Amino acid sequence: MSVLIVGSLGLDTIKTPQGRCIDILGGSVSYASISASYFGPVRMVAVAGSDFPGKYIGLFRSRGIDVRGLVLEKGKTFRWEGEYGWDFGDPRTIATHLNVFAAFDPLLPADYRDSRCVFLANIDPVIQEKVLSQIKRPKLVLCDTMNYWIDRKRTELLRLIKKVDIFLLNESEARQLSGQNSVYAAAKSIMKAGAKSLIIKKGEHGAMLFRGRKVFCVPAYLLESIYDPTGAGDTFAGGFIGYLAASPKIDDAAMRRAVVYGNIMATFTVEAFSVNRLAAINRKDIERRYREFRKLVTF
Amino acid sequence: MSVLIVGSLGLDTIKTPQGRCIDILGGSVSYASISASYFGPVRMVAVAGSDFPGKYIGLFRSRGIDVRGLVLEKGKTFRWEGEYGWDFGDPRTIATHLNVFAAFDPLLPADYRDSRCVFLANIDPVIQEKVLSQIKRPKLVLCDTMNYWIDRKRTELLRLIKKVDIFLLNESEARQLSGQNSVYAAAKSIMKAGAKSLIIKKGEHGAMLFRGRKVFCVPAYLLESIYDPTGAGDTFAGGFIGYLAASPKIDDAAMRRAVVYGNIMATFTVEAFSVNRLAAINRKDIERRYREFRKLVTF
Repeated sequence: MSVLIVGSLGLDTIKTPQGRCIDILGGSVSYASISASYFGPVRMVAVAGSDFPGKYIGLFRSRGIDVRGLVLEKGKTFRWEGEYGWDFGDPRTIATHLNVFAAFDPLLPADYRDSRCVFLANIDPVIQEKVLSQIKRPKLVLCDTMNYWIDRKRTELLRLIKKVDIFLLNESEARQLSGQNSVYAAAKSIMKAGAKSLIIKKGEHGAMLFRGRKVFCVPAYLLESIYDPTGAGDTFAGGFIGYLAASPKIDDAAMRRAVVYGNIMATFTVEAFSVNRLAAINRKDIERRYREFRKLVTF
Repeated sequence: MSVLIVGSLGLDTIKTPQGRCIDILGGSVSYASISASYFGPVRMVAVAGSDFPGKYIGLFRSRGIDVRGLVLEKGKTFRWEGEYGWDFGDPRTIATHLNVFAAFDPLLPADYRDSRCVFLANIDPVIQEKVLSQIKRPKLVLCDTMNYWIDRKRTELLRLIKKVDIFLLNESEARQLSGQNSVYAAAKSIMKAGAKSLIIKKGEHGAMLFRGRKVFCVPAYLLESIYDPTGAGDTFAGGFIGYLAASPKIDDAAMRRAVVYGNIMATFTVEAFSVNRLAAINRKDIERRYREFRKLVTF
């Protein structure tokens, strides 16, 4: 099954303790689409400006990604500039220029509307809902968000949560949305608010999947050196839904494996700036890390 | 095999978002000894003042702990006062009164010297080394420390690391000792400095065991409500070494299970103030959580 991915597309300027890069490929759809493309076909929905480098569109195409949903508008591409500290915690935003992304309100190509698996990456929940309403019979909808929308569009977000299958948050966002300090209590509260399944991303500490009364926890894969954590969460999401879309059965066992694959995919992203490492791997690299990860956690 | 545990014994005044308790039983030996006592015999080495409540000694005895190494000195017992914030991160120390603990330099009872398993809880590394030198043929020595000693007695600590079997640190201490920002790189650097095995405690994010080139990671067990995280690390250590001391074979598989048992024991500690919950459980409660934990992490 094709995975439809909608989100931001941008050019990032990033400084980490390992170096600085200017105007490199960024945005949630870049990371999520390339990540998902290792498991099956991907349809991209995004907007970029007329300054968006053709080589990046070529990169998407080389990964077999359907880019008919990528619209090039007159104007400049979304840009973000950020800096990570020594501990690679939350980055400090130096500048955000929405540019053409400010008016992002996509109309899906007609044949995208039969997509069964959908990843609504972090954008305005009102736009996420409008995209979802264009899909005829979605089977599996994964939805991300961020602190900004929890703050400003809580009502719309809580309405959307009920319409999607799996809701994705990081730890602090889960605390913020629920008002609970323990992650477990936060998850329970968000499930009660209508989420069918919930994934809480914990960055370098792994991830948790809540599904009904079942919980699955994974630590992160161990990496000796981190270059740039940007996009790790979107890479996780892409790997997660990509694996499930290709799975013959979407049950608890498949969901758990999908979390592990998402986790593994994110490790490639943080090993280089932008998608430089993520776009350069093959399925064997992924399977090798999957096997190593199993050894890491087995007792 | 008996486990010998040496460390601090104190009375804590603790404020958490769940309440405040005055002069409750605290100190590393309390948590570690009670935790280890669920797996086999424990010998305690500690000092308290003449004001130390007899009921606590009764509690140790009721858990079968050998308290002949607990010396009651004229003067006051060690006291610590701290406060935890909403997120249960590192507590803010309000007051520390070392009292009789300031001159702690224990001479082991003669028949403690044949102890095979030893936990040197967090005290001055010079004293830890002096205790270790009194043990005839230690088989398994676990050693904890803290940021204070990494700062002030780095040389002594680095000498001690080579003499123990397993060195125990939390994440920020591992970064501090190694000067490395990635936990994995920090662990590698500490192993290179002479640690045979290394455990990095990550609190609510679980723990990691490094042993030669092998690594084992566990997430934390999920708890809905936390009352007081004080003593969680020492409870982990007590459960870890207690399980290994009772194990017929100390190999990689046993070490991994010991990490999981340590992890499980700590969950009981944080569910109440002081050792109130930890001291009130039975082996069945532990095994139940062990089984639940396996379900939590299996894929």
